[in-house]
Amino acid sequence: MNYDEIFQAVVAQVKAEGRYRIFVDLERSKGSFPLARVHGQSGVQDVVVWCSNDYLAMGQHPKVIAAMEEALRRSGAGSGGTRNISGTNPVHAALEAELADLHGKSAALLFTSGYIANTATLSALTRALPGALVLSDALNHASMIEGMSRGEAEKRIWRHNDLTHLEALLAACPTDRPKIIAFESVYSMDGDIAPVGAICDLAKKYGALTYVDEVHAVGLYGDRGGGIAERDGVMDRVDVIEGTLAKAFGVMGGYIAASTALVDAVRCSAPEFIFTSALSPVLVAGALASVRHLKNSHVERDALHAGAATLKKMIAERGFPMLPSQSHIVPVKVGAAVRCKAVADYLLEDHDIYVQPINYPTVPRGTERLRFTPGPYHDGAMMGALMLALDAAWERFGIERAA
Amino acid sequence: MNYDEIFQAVVAQVKAEGRYRIFVDLERSKGSFPLARVHGQSGVQDVVVWCSNDYLAMGQHPKVIAAMEEALRRSGAGSGGTRNISGTNPVHAALEAELADLHGKSAALLFTSGYIANTATLSALTRALPGALVLSDALNHASMIEGMSRGEAEKRIWRHNDLTHLEALLAACPTDRPKIIAFESVYSMDGDIAPVGAICDLAKKYGALTYVDEVHAVGLYGDRGGGIAERDGVMDRVDVIEGTLAKAFGVMGGYIAASTALVDAVRCSAPEFIFTSALSPVLVAGALASVRHLKNSHVERDALHAGAATLKKMIAERGFPMLPSQSHIVPVKVGAAVRCKAVADYLLEDHDIYVQPINYPTVPRGTERLRFTPGPYHDGAMMGALMLALDAAWERFGIERAA
Repeated sequence: MNYDEIFQAVVAQVKAEGRYRIFVDLERSKGSFPLARVHGQSGVQDVVVWCSNDYLAMGQHPKVIAAMEEALRRSGAGSGGTRNISGTNPVHAALEAELADLHGKSAALLFTSGYIANTATLSALTRALPGALVLSDALNHASMIEGMSRGEAEKRIWRHNDLTHLEALLAACPTDRPKIIAFESVYSMDGDIAPVGAICDLAKKYGALTYVDEVHAVGLYGDRGGGIAERDGVMDRVDVIEGTLAKAFGVMGGYIAASTALVDAVRCSAPEFIFTSALSPVLVAGALASVRHLKNSHVERDALHAGAATLKKMIAERGFPMLPSQSHIVPVKVGAAVRCKAVADYLLEDHDIYVQPINYPTVPRGTERLRFTPGPYHDGAMMGALMLALDAAWERFGIERAA
Repeated sequence: MNYDEIFQAVVAQVKAEGRYRIFVDLERSKGSFPLARVHGQSGVQDVVVWCSNDYLAMGQHPKVIAAMEEALRRSGAGSGGTRNISGTNPVHAALEAELADLHGKSAALLFTSGYIANTATLSALTRALPGALVLSDALNHASMIEGMSRGEAEKRIWRHNDLTHLEALLAACPTDRPKIIAFESVYSMDGDIAPVGAICDLAKKYGALTYVDEVHAVGLYGDRGGGIAERDGVMDRVDVIEGTLAKAFGVMGGYIAASTALVDAVRCSAPEFIFTSALSPVLVAGALASVRHLKNSHVERDALHAGAATLKKMIAERGFPMLPSQSHIVPVKVGAAVRCKAVADYLLEDHDIYVQPINYPTVPRGTERLRFTPGPYHDGAMMGALMLALDAAWERFGIERAA
C-alpha cells in the first residue's frame, strides 16, 4: 500500500473543489488591533484585519494582559494535569463561578475550546437521556452536529429558525420521551439571530431541554455580555448556554453554564473533559479579567454595534449585496468560490485589507461571501478605505450591485 | 420531564460506583515546583505534588516564561480566529516546523489538546482510507478509541503489547486492504513501554500504517526529546507520531508529526482542526521555547530518570507493591477504590503529600493505585518523607507489602 499516494489524492480532491486553504501568516501586534502584518512570500505587509473573531479587541486589553502576566509569574505556563489529577488551580473555579453568574446559572464548566464544549456536552446529554430525540437547527455548527451524532440518539433537523417546523417535530414526539432542542443564537456566517424566547416557549409546551450555542454572542449582547438570551430576557428559560472565551472575550477556551445537576453529570461523564489537561491558568486568568470587565463596561459593546451599524449603512448605500444580518456580522455576497478568493486576494494585495473568503463547505455553494467583523477600533478612515477598495473590486471583477 | 432529576441520578450512579471526583484546588507557584498550596475547606496547606504531568517542571522554566511574556506583550492574549480565518500567527508555523524537525518528519500540525490531536487525526485517517482495518492496542487512551470509533472503519483490538496477537490479526487481513496500527509508546497508568521497532517490523511486513501516541514520552526520551521512537532509533519507521505540549513541554496543546501528504490531508479534512480557534500565540511561543530547549538540554531528562530510578529502588526496598514500570512513571498498587482514596486522603492530610488516587475506570478494578511522577526537583528529602509517609499509610491501612 502506498499510503502517501492516497493522502495526496485526498488533498488533490480538496484542491479540485476549490476548498484548499493556504493560511495567511498574520502577525497581530498588541496595541495596534485591527492593524497587523502579513508575512508573505514577497515580504511583510501592513494590513487592516476585517475578519477577526476577537470582536472587541479584548485580546489586547490592558486588564487581560496584566492578569495573564501576573498568572504567568505566579503559576507558570501550564496547568500540569487534568482537572482531576493536579490540574485544577483556584483560578479555574473562580472563572467557572464567574461564568455561572454571567448566565444566571448555578454552575459552569470549562473546556479547552468551544468545539469541545459542544461535542462533549451534547454527546454526554444524549448518553444521560437514553431514547432522547434531538432536534437540531439546520444551520447548527459542525461541533454541535458532531456531538449530537456520536451516540445512539435519534436526530431530526428543523429548518433554520423555522418555529412551525420545530413545533411540528415536537408535536409528533411522545410526551414522555426526552427531547433536546439544540440551536445557536447568532449564526456566524449569515449574522441572523434565533428567536430564543419563542423556542423556549415551544420547549416548555412540549417538555424539551434547550441548548443554545452563544459563541458569537457572549460578551457582545445583553447588559452584562450574557448574550442574546440575556438581551432578550430569557436566560432563565434556556437550560444550557454554551460559550467561548476565544471570540469576544479575546483569549481561548470554551464553556457551558447550566444547572448544578446537569453540569455535574457532564463533568463526571464526558471523556473530552475528564481526559484532557486543564486550560493553562494563564488563559483562565485572562478570560476571568475579560469576563469581569465586560460585565461592567459597555463601551466596547457600544462601539462594536455602532461600528457595525455604520458599516452596514455604508455598504447598503453603495449597493454591495449584503446578506440580511441582524447582528454585528456583516456578510457581503460574492457568489462563486474562485471569484470570492480572487476578490479577497485583490483586497489584500492592492488595498492592504485582509478579509478571508468564506467558501463551501462553510457556506452553501453560490453564496460564497466576504464576512466583515467590524470592531471597536475600526475607525471611519478604515471604513472609508474599505468602501473605496470594494468599489474598485466590484468594478474590476464585474460583480453586480443590489438595486 | 424533570431533566434535573435524571442528571442527579447520573451523578448518584457515579457516586455509588465510587467514581465521583472532587477536584483538589491546587495553587502551583512558579519557581517552587513541585511545592504547591492546596486550598481546602479548612484553609491553605503547603504540599509536595507527586502526580503532575508537568514531568520536567518546564512550566516554570525561565526560557518558557520569558517567551510567553514576550508573546503576550507582542501579540496579545488570543489568536483571534481559526487557523484559516485570521488565526495563524508566524509562531504557529515556527512551532510546527520545530516539531516536524524534532520527530524527523516533513510536517506537523497543532491542535488545542492531545485529546483532539488523537480524535481528529484517527477519524480523518479512517475517512481517508475507506474500508481500512484499524488495529488498536487494548490499553489505548480514550481519545484514540474515540477517534477510531467515529467513522465506519472496522476496529480489532490486540492484546496489550502482544506482538503475536497483532501479527495474527494482520495476517488474517487481505494484503490490499488498508490497515492502521494504533498504539502508545509509554502507557501512562502502568508505565510500560511498547516494542515500537517490532511493531514497525510487522507493519512493514503486512503493509500497515503506524500511529503512535507519545504523549508520555515526548521531551522525556531520545537524545533530543523525540520520544521512545527516537530513543529506539525507529522514528523514520513510524508514520504518525502524536504528542502533547501539556506534559513534558509544560504548556498546553497537542500535535501530530508525519509526512506532508498525511498532515495536509488531516489539515484539510478534520473538522476539529478546521472549526476551532487556533492556539493562543502565548502558548505556542512557550511551547516553542520548551521544545527548543529540550532538544539541546539533557539535564532535565537526566534528573528525571535518575529520580525515577532512585524512587523505584526505595519503593522496592521497602516492599511497596510497585507495578513493573519500564518508564519514569512509578505506580504503586493499593488495590481497592475506597482504600486507595483513603490512603491518598491520609497522605494529604497527615503528610502534606498530594498524589491523586487512580481508580476505575481509568484502571481496572482491583488494580487501583497511587501513581507517582518524580520530577527533576523532587529531592532526596522529599523522597525520604514520602517513604516515611507510605510506611505509616501501609501500617495504618494494613496493606500488604511485596516479598
